[in-house]
Amino acid sequence: MPTPAYDETNIFAKILRGELPCHKVYEDDVTLAFMDIMPRADGHVLVLPKSLARNILDADPGILGLLITRVQKIAVAVKSALAADGITILQYNEPAGGQIVFHLHFHVLPRWKGVQLRPHTGVLEKPEVLEGFCQKIAAALKAA
Amino acid sequence: MPTPAYDETNIFAKILRGELPCHKVYEDDVTLAFMDIMPRADGHVLVLPKSLARNILDADPGILGLLITRVQKIAVAVKSALAADGITILQYNEPAGGQIVFHLHFHVLPRWKGVQLRPHTGVLEKPEVLEGFCQKIAAALKAA
Repeated sequence: MPTPAYDETNIFAKILRGELPCHKVYEDDVTLAFMDIMPRADGHVLVLPKSLARNILDADPGILGLLITRVQKIAVAVKSALAADGITILQYNEPAGGQIVFHLHFHVLPRWKGVQLRPHTGVLEKPEVLEGFCQKIAAALKAA
Repeated sequence: MPTPAYDETNIFAKILRGELPCHKVYEDDVTLAFMDIMPRADGHVLVLPKSLARNILDADPGILGLLITRVQKIAVAVKSALAADGITILQYNEPAGGQIVFHLHFHVLPRWKGVQLRPHTGVLEKPEVLEGFCQKIAAALKAA
C-alpha cells in the first residue's frame, strides 16, 4: 500500500508554520526540534525536518541524511545537558508502526540507569518543567 | 561522560569481518543489513555501517547521513515484502539507552495492525524462518 499523502493539518505542521507554540530546543534551515509535551522521559525531544514528509517511507533521502546529523547533534547535547547514561531514539511510521502525528519525526530520549521509559499516556507535562529541560538542552547545543 | 572506545570484539564486528555468519538482507560499500536472530517482530532487520562506530554518539556524521538512507530503503522494502502496515525504527545508545551490542545499528521492525512488538527475550529464531524472511526482503530490495 503506498504511503498516504502529506496532511498539512497535522499538529507539527501547525508548529512549523508558527500557528502553535513549542518549547524550541534547536532550529536551522533543515530542522526544528522541540520538547515533547507528553514526554516518555525527562528531556524527551522531537526532531523534525522543516520540509514536508509524512514519515521515513516518503521522505526525501537528501533531507533525511541531513536530518539524522541534527538528531545526532541533539542526542549528544541532551545526554550532556541532562547527565544521561544513554539515549534511545525512536522513529515511528504509520499508525501500526506507532506514529500518531503525521509529519516525520525522531524521538530523542535521555535514559538513566534503572529508569524505565514511561508509557505514552497522553498526560501533558507542566510548561515550566518542559521549559526547564528546554533551556538546559538549548544551552548545551549553543556551547557545542 | 565521553562515549567509550570502540570494542572490536563485539558480535557485529565479527559478522562484518566474516568471522560469524548472518542472514544477509543487503550490502553495499557503506552498509551491511541482516536479520536479527532474536527478532521482536517477524522480519526484524538490523542495519549497520561497515565503518566502526560504537553508536550514534560517536558516529561520523557523513557516514550516518549515508546510513539512514539505507535504513529508509530497507524500511520501504521490508514493508512491501512482508505486507506490513507500518514500520518502527529503534536505535539504542549505551546500556541505559537499551544497547546490547556495541556497534552502531538501527532496528527496522515491520508492524501489523493489532500485533504488539515481542519483548526482547533472548530466544533464538529458527534459521529457516529467518532465511525465509531474509529472501523475501532481499528480493524486494533487488526489485526496488
